[in-house]
Amino acid sequence: MAWRFALRIDPVASDDRRESFDDTLRVIDPGAPALPVGELSAQRGDGIFESLGVVGGHPQEVGPHLERLVHSAQLCELPTPHLAQWRAAIERVAAEAGEGESVIKLVLSRGVDGGASPTAWITLADAPDNARARSEGVRIATLDRGYALDVPARAPWLLLGAKTLSYATNMAAIREAQRRGADDAVFVSSDGYVLEAPTASVVLRFGDRFVTPTPSAGILHGTTQLSLFAHLEQRGFATAYDTVTTAQLAEADAAWLLSSVRLAAPVAAVDGQPMAIDRAFTDELNAYLLSPRD
Amino acid sequence: MAWRFALRIDPVASDDRRESFDDTLRVIDPGAPALPVGELSAQRGDGIFESLGVVGGHPQEVGPHLERLVHSAQLCELPTPHLAQWRAAIERVAAEAGEGESVIKLVLSRGVDGGASPTAWITLADAPDNARARSEGVRIATLDRGYALDVPARAPWLLLGAKTLSYATNMAAIREAQRRGADDAVFVSSDGYVLEAPTASVVLRFGDRFVTPTPSAGILHGTTQLSLFAHLEQRGFATAYDTVTTAQLAEADAAWLLSSVRLAAPVAAVDGQPMAIDRAFTDELNAYLLSPRD
Repeated sequence: MAWRFALRIDPVASDDRRESFDDTLRVIDPGAPALPVGELSAQRGDGIFESLGVVGGHPQEVGPHLERLVHSAQLCELPTPHLAQWRAAIERVAAEAGEGESVIKLVLSRGVDGGASPTAWITLADAPDNARARSEGVRIATLDRGYALDVPARAPWLLLGAKTLSYATNMAAIREAQRRGADDAVFVSSDGYVLEAPTASVVLRFGDRFVTPTPSAGILHGTTQLSLFAHLEQRGFATAYDTVTTAQLAEADAAWLLSSVRLAAPVAAVDGQPMAIDRAFTDELNAYLLSPRD
Repeated sequence: MAWRFALRIDPVASDDRRESFDDTLRVIDPGAPALPVGELSAQRGDGIFESLGVVGGHPQEVGPHLERLVHSAQLCELPTPHLAQWRAAIERVAAEAGEGESVIKLVLSRGVDGGASPTAWITLADAPDNARARSEGVRIATLDRGYALDVPARAPWLLLGAKTLSYATNMAAIREAQRRGADDAVFVSSDGYVLEAPTASVVLRFGDRFVTPTPSAGILHGTTQLSLFAHLEQRGFATAYDTVTTAQLAEADAAWLLSSVRLAAPVAAVDGQPMAIDRAFTDELNAYLLSPRD
């Protein structure tokens, strides 16, 4: 990551009525020491995050990302983020983005161990070059996520529907996929249902119908998938949330991994079996996803 | 946590032959900024840790803790820790401990995002007052860990046998247990087997036989449990690693949660059902666990 800019945020209560948040935002050097070793984000991955794409200075889908941040905070029993404060921070950071594609990351941690208040910061970095993934696609390996489809709803303490900082497993899954000769992983439940990729949603195409696994306690509701479905509906396609079996993944006419920064990456192979890529159609999807979206 | 001392460690290769590690250890202020926001420990809980008890200046079970750190590093594909370097760091920190009980925490993170080397540090803090947990015991709530007993071995990417920094779920489980009127949680598999507590091992007593759930890819091998079993064997008791059903937990003559800092905390209730505490015997166990152990 080429870090370009960072702000430390002093979180205010969610019902704070102040008009300006300027004095709660402080520019920090993204490469300099900023967090003490007692930070619970660093000690226990105890916090939540969001990653937003920025295109030509425009932060994409700010509302849906903040909505999900609030949802994650509730699941993790963190203080509710003040939406206007986070919006102000995002605007301040996006103003530094300039042309091209960048990434804004929002982090809300439980704070320093033994301390009384959460810690929050926001960073701006250059986006990695995703041209190849968008055009030639990604080969995926399916990996068991270890739980049955009904587990997350009955065991909310597993935090499976929250976007927490405890992402070691997600990173290990990507390494395992690469060891298998793939580029990315797709998690499947122990009872054979497609869930999501470690950092992306899965969308399948069957004829003129697009399907994504039903968001639930175990699957994050992808902001990019949500935006893409609205676009597809406008174009006259049918969209659906449904359970998707591993067998259906192989039978789909096409599939994509959707995420905020890489956007639509067509699936080029599933567990070594090639899958057709509709390049012109994927280009259209990414052109839409690269347009300013709120 | 009352942080008292911290060292930053510049990790050397595991085959480094140098005789002194002094110039790889640097005293830092545990309350001052030390980690940049790009630290992968803080961004993704991507790293591993160990917590050691220190009694009267003596760090307990250094060998077994370092052995487990190395095991976690292998599972997470982190560079192998240099044992002599970590021993030197532990000695340096323990020298600051003084009388009473303290906690040493070892952390090895994957480093700064985009950087080439891991980050490592070690802290010293006062131990919390565990007198009450050791004498009056802890009430536990059993919570579904979401996976069947055979999952961790076939899905190593879930990192369930590694002591990673991704502990948000462990902390959420303790909060859920407290919401249920208990003090701590005990995870059970989705097929009904006792696993471990979020930060402790479980040991059950049946007559003169002591049983703990078999360490596996899904259960950390507790250093304190290991030490306690050696002690119990010396005293003529039988010890065993075995599968333990949730029903057996309720049928045991007694049970303890074992961990490096709280040591032996007798279980006073399981899901609201009181359990007998043998206070004199537990006092003996803790007297042993508080004696210098290597």
